[in-house]
Amino acid sequence: MENFQFYSPTEFVFGRDTEDKAGELVKKHGGSKVLIHYGGGSAERSGLLGRVRASLDKAGISYTELGGVKPNPRDTLVYEGIELCRKEGIDFILSVGGGSTIDSSKAIALGVPYDGDFWDFYCGRAVAKAALPVGTVLTIAAAGSEGSGDSVITKEDGGLKRGTGTDLIRPRFSILDPQLTCTLPAYQTACGATDIMAHVFERYFTNTTEVEVTDRLCEAVLLTMIKETPRVIADPNNYDARANIMWAGTVAHTNIVGVGREQDWNSHGIEHELSALYDCAHGAGLAVIMPAWMEFVYKHNALRFAQAATRIWGCQMDFEHPEVTALEGIKRFRSFLHSIGMPINFAELGAREKDIPALVEKFGIGGGRTGGFVHLSAEDIAEIYRIAAKAEL
Amino acid sequence: MENFQFYSPTEFVFGRDTEDKAGELVKKHGGSKVLIHYGGGSAERSGLLGRVRASLDKAGISYTELGGVKPNPRDTLVYEGIELCRKEGIDFILSVGGGSTIDSSKAIALGVPYDGDFWDFYCGRAVAKAALPVGTVLTIAAAGSEGSGDSVITKEDGGLKRGTGTDLIRPRFSILDPQLTCTLPAYQTACGATDIMAHVFERYFTNTTEVEVTDRLCEAVLLTMIKETPRVIADPNNYDARANIMWAGTVAHTNIVGVGREQDWNSHGIEHELSALYDCAHGAGLAVIMPAWMEFVYKHNALRFAQAATRIWGCQMDFEHPEVTALEGIKRFRSFLHSIGMPINFAELGAREKDIPALVEKFGIGGGRTGGFVHLSAEDIAEIYRIAAKAEL
Repeated sequence: MENFQFYSPTEFVFGRDTEDKAGELVKKHGGSKVLIHYGGGSAERSGLLGRVRASLDKAGISYTELGGVKPNPRDTLVYEGIELCRKEGIDFILSVGGGSTIDSSKAIALGVPYDGDFWDFYCGRAVAKAALPVGTVLTIAAAGSEGSGDSVITKEDGGLKRGTGTDLIRPRFSILDPQLTCTLPAYQTACGATDIMAHVFERYFTNTTEVEVTDRLCEAVLLTMIKETPRVIADPNNYDARANIMWAGTVAHTNIVGVGREQDWNSHGIEHELSALYDCAHGAGLAVIMPAWMEFVYKHNALRFAQAATRIWGCQMDFEHPEVTALEGIKRFRSFLHSIGMPINFAELGAREKDIPALVEKFGIGGGRTGGFVHLSAEDIAEIYRIAAKAEL
Repeated sequence: MENFQFYSPTEFVFGRDTEDKAGELVKKHGGSKVLIHYGGGSAERSGLLGRVRASLDKAGISYTELGGVKPNPRDTLVYEGIELCRKEGIDFILSVGGGSTIDSSKAIALGVPYDGDFWDFYCGRAVAKAALPVGTVLTIAAAGSEGSGDSVITKEDGGLKRGTGTDLIRPRFSILDPQLTCTLPAYQTACGATDIMAHVFERYFTNTTEVEVTDRLCEAVLLTMIKETPRVIADPNNYDARANIMWAGTVAHTNIVGVGREQDWNSHGIEHELSALYDCAHGAGLAVIMPAWMEFVYKHNALRFAQAATRIWGCQMDFEHPEVTALEGIKRFRSFLHSIGMPINFAELGAREKDIPALVEKFGIGGGRTGGFVHLSAEDIAEIYRIAAKAEL
């Protein structure tokens, strides 16, 4: 196990009707003038924004609003938010939505106290020194942004998708009411579940040895997702299944299941180019990419993949041919994703094989290699896209 | 799943030589005048105290010291610590030791800013409003106090052992260096491992339904302990096994594996009377009590015990007779405890069956019942002591 620091100071308030505590939580965490940042009209139509406003009113907290966050959140709205916050003297950002809204909120939070262009933090030109505090009311179990210090933003001009990470933007509190996720369409629910599982697998496949505790914690989250996801696809109003998925999604991404070990994250990087180019859902892109990545790399440590197959997917171990077991696990993962309504190849995702050279070009490693479980060259990444393009059950 | 709040703001700094960061961490978390609180001479002899002092010196932080914390930490030393802190104008308590030292530190932290008797918080006469900040350098994986808001203190006069819990005493940081635990005798290591497993089982046996995610997380910690504990008993210097146990112990008690569900804690309560009367190690007492408690209550939900038996202990499920599987799991737990050197009955612990009426009397529920998985009467508790007294493999 490697040395690590783990710091997750977010106050999680979980359960039915917890959005009514938004006002008292903003107050407790030092906010007095709030920007409510949200996405489309559904937060208004569902009555959620109304309840949040009522809660802020009750706590005597004033607020301004900025809606319009889209999936794969854009830099353009972030600039607008930064300007608005400065003009209104905002001291707290309350994010009402999913990962895109939270990531957009975090970007605004970083930009407000910074003299330069907030994009500096996303392209590695600067390290953040300060940020406005952020709180969240989560509406979809997926990105884990409600419990992380990460944010991913897409540059409108050119579609560049880049991320940044700092403890400064870990939410002060996150309100998790599983009821809010019951109205999600099955496709979005499945995309979220795929994202959660991918967050765990990115940590699971590692070259660090002797990490039993985090292996087991990773497996715990995955076993939960495998049990609970089909239940919410079958019955969107199953509160308990929604609740298990929501907490699993948060645990998956606070990094408590991934400390002390090298992590991979190449599937996320490879997927980002798909959602940037086709504006597809991140989870759907991951469903296509991650099993393909697994098929490309599994021989690097077939026993680790066999461990996943037996412990997570319930495969019988073939002790004479561990690679057979390893492949069987990957196959079951793809079948599972298909069973919850996810695409499994380029055609089902709406991606085009002929774009592969452009995707690889945009990934932008030139003649170098990525880090992670297996260090990938541009040609390796092209091959993963090709496997993903043609995948079948 | 039930509604819950989860808040664990402790900064965990984990790995080799992390004790050298004590000074910078105290500074980061606002301390300038520190009480170093510790136990016996081993922290001095091992050179740990010297390294901590050097780290504080380097950060320009002044300090006073108070040693002498004993297992089952006493109120008398807490009073001494409170007086010393007030006299010296201490603004931060740095706890160097195990659960007893941390619990004593937390009690001092609560007592300093309080006008009345600190014991008020432990016997339920008052609710704490403030506390000095606490940081820890952990020397044994066991109590989980390094990541919890709990503290248990024993009243010297009469041996009353009582606990309190508040977010105010969650450590600001905890330094976890597995190397520091390599010098522990096997018996203490095993006591610590038993305590960690007990913390999980107290959460695992619940009447709350639909808690798959926390069930799986509990099982993850237990499976880790079952793999790693025999390795450190066989080879005390196995760093990786020590590291897995140390992080498992912290995760077990931040409550991330226990949120959203009713918990039990009767085994802890029943054990506390043993360690208060005989001054035995808490973990050793738990090794005797917890399997006995399980045998007394398992019929209340035999399928939950069968789940534990199959998922944790690898038993084959007897679908015609789930109670047989349930009992087999309990038997394997006791055998496991015995295999790591723990006592399994009163004789091995040094307890006396004839004291049972006195133990029950001191437990102090009179004609009432406890809460938890099964609500126990005084007679039930007596029966659990009797089962524990006579237990065999």
